[in-house]
Amino acid sequence: MTVFEERVEALKKEGKKAAIDAFLVTSENNMKYFAGFSTLAIERFAGIIIPVESGVPVVIVPRLEETKAKKSPLKKIISYSDSESPRLLLNKIVRELRLEKATLGIEGTLPFRFYQMLMSASSKIRPQDASNLFSQLRCVKSERELEKIEKAASIVAEGIKAGIEFTKAGVTELAISSQIERAIKESGGESVPFCLVLSGANSALPHGETSSRKVSEKDVVLMDVGAVYEGYYGDLTRTIFVGQATRKEKEIYDVVAQAQEQAINRVKPNIKAEEVDAAARKVIENAGYGNHFTHRTGHGLGLEVHEEPYIVQGNKTMLKPGMAFTIEPGIYFFEKFGIRIEDNIAVSQTKGKMLSHISKELIVV
Amino acid sequence: MTVFEERVEALKKEGKKAAIDAFLVTSENNMKYFAGFSTLAIERFAGIIIPVESGVPVVIVPRLEETKAKKSPLKKIISYSDSESPRLLLNKIVRELRLEKATLGIEGTLPFRFYQMLMSASSKIRPQDASNLFSQLRCVKSERELEKIEKAASIVAEGIKAGIEFTKAGVTELAISSQIERAIKESGGESVPFCLVLSGANSALPHGETSSRKVSEKDVVLMDVGAVYEGYYGDLTRTIFVGQATRKEKEIYDVVAQAQEQAINRVKPNIKAEEVDAAARKVIENAGYGNHFTHRTGHGLGLEVHEEPYIVQGNKTMLKPGMAFTIEPGIYFFEKFGIRIEDNIAVSQTKGKMLSHISKELIVV
Repeated sequence: MTVFEERVEALKKEGKKAAIDAFLVTSENNMKYFAGFSTLAIERFAGIIIPVESGVPVVIVPRLEETKAKKSPLKKIISYSDSESPRLLLNKIVRELRLEKATLGIEGTLPFRFYQMLMSASSKIRPQDASNLFSQLRCVKSERELEKIEKAASIVAEGIKAGIEFTKAGVTELAISSQIERAIKESGGESVPFCLVLSGANSALPHGETSSRKVSEKDVVLMDVGAVYEGYYGDLTRTIFVGQATRKEKEIYDVVAQAQEQAINRVKPNIKAEEVDAAARKVIENAGYGNHFTHRTGHGLGLEVHEEPYIVQGNKTMLKPGMAFTIEPGIYFFEKFGIRIEDNIAVSQTKGKMLSHISKELIVV
Repeated sequence: MTVFEERVEALKKEGKKAAIDAFLVTSENNMKYFAGFSTLAIERFAGIIIPVESGVPVVIVPRLEETKAKKSPLKKIISYSDSESPRLLLNKIVRELRLEKATLGIEGTLPFRFYQMLMSASSKIRPQDASNLFSQLRCVKSERELEKIEKAASIVAEGIKAGIEFTKAGVTELAISSQIERAIKESGGESVPFCLVLSGANSALPHGETSSRKVSEKDVVLMDVGAVYEGYYGDLTRTIFVGQATRKEKEIYDVVAQAQEQAINRVKPNIKAEEVDAAARKVIENAGYGNHFTHRTGHGLGLEVHEEPYIVQGNKTMLKPGMAFTIEPGIYFFEKFGIRIEDNIAVSQTKGKMLSHISKELIVV
């Protein structure tokens, strides 16, 4: 049995427990996870129907994607041309599998127009958001998956090192970003979905955008970079200083580094995800900067850059061995500067295991 | 009035005609189009509620995005923190705007979980897929928008020229792809969302993936590249030959080039989008390769790389001045080779106007 077929079996098992008759998998990443391929089908419908009790999974793709789909270990592929109706096809498959009145586990991301198509293909289907079942399966990684994340993180680290090397007064954020991307590609990164370089006051915007701003003497420069290796994400942030770091900046850097350290030390199986967030938050609150830590402590990593487990207040998800996520506290002073340090961690049998290996000493270039 | 406010007014006008009480804008690109910014909110809810009759648009964003949102020309911004419920917030806004029973124009891409959130915030709201109204507005570009697409296409052309220059036996698809990306960045491209280099038999896969395959003597090499300039897409394909082109390859190249030429010549206002597709298809069918032209002739270009008007059989959309799209016929021989030529075109007052300016002579390197 391939790893993909094992995953399908694990999903069926969850489906039985949850009284779901069949699943409809539609997101790019869940397609990859269960079928070993994904489509570029954005406006065209593509999906996998996975009956829980009996019957094999049925992969539905636009004709254009048929060749790619045929490489999947899932063998039942049905394609439709641009002049055929995917609604009629869906209706036919639903009837063949006797799913006319089924409880259908769908994804929370299913676009409204495909939801409508599904309901008009079979109006008695009961769709139910099964996103939690999908993410439950996906958030516990195999050894092989963790290796890929670790490799992705090491590739991102090469990028950030190149970025640090290149940074000096006078170069633009975009030029630094280019250097990072180049190094990532040379290190075997498949793609660089984001490569933020934020300097000066821009560093205070947690979701700012890399610009043509030139780095100046005394700037803070924050680099937040994600890269993909064999489909899996690494995601790291480092913040450095140009020419000098002020006493205040050094103090803040130290608080963020300690918050991160405390959160990493907190990681082990059978604690709640929110406890890791609390560990980081407590350090920052105690230092008097609670209001300046404006985001969650981290997010899961895998085929997506944001997935379960979210390291955030309110997330009662119990950590399990094999889970992987970022720990990335930050402190931001609007229109002044921001500092964030981000690493990637897996849960081992007993504690947190670093997946990223790059110094977090304060660096002045 | 800013261009964004003008767009909001144009949407309201369409809403009145369609008996829609308010719109909920949620997709990244429609947020950009109407509010001048977009969010990275993937798992968190973000949107704009635009009442049709009276009241100003309300922008709802996660707290993290508030700073960015405040740069929008739309002035009513409401943010929520990670510990607050966007459902309750939505409920409150719906009550304030008296939209409890409104016909709400939503997007076809609205994820199922946000659809559920909306319905649980106000169960008597009648959601209606208004995607066609959004795309009707967006597919007719202003002069300024067409300039951006033309600039994006010229940046892609620089990339493809660099790729052609670099191509020879022994280099990998990925290495060519890197050169293309580098040249695009150097030419001012904001991002390179796709940069396909498909050599040898890979070129026969219209949606294949760039690999570490080394280009060989006598290979066909197909490059299909998209880049973004100020938010707008250019998207070009060129297919070249290494060492030599066989008689058959030359024949096919010529058929594809002629099909493209005929389609371009067909473009003018007040014909149906499908007529442009038919013009390309007829040339390829007459040459006896109809079964090998396995996709539509083109797609609209703008803030998205695939948008209206789709140049495809069955699309009765009437072309109007200001529309912009690709024309990209191709012929594919499975496990042998494929040839596609793609340019970007706008509809002028009288005919098709080229937005891309790069030779389509047959090139042997």
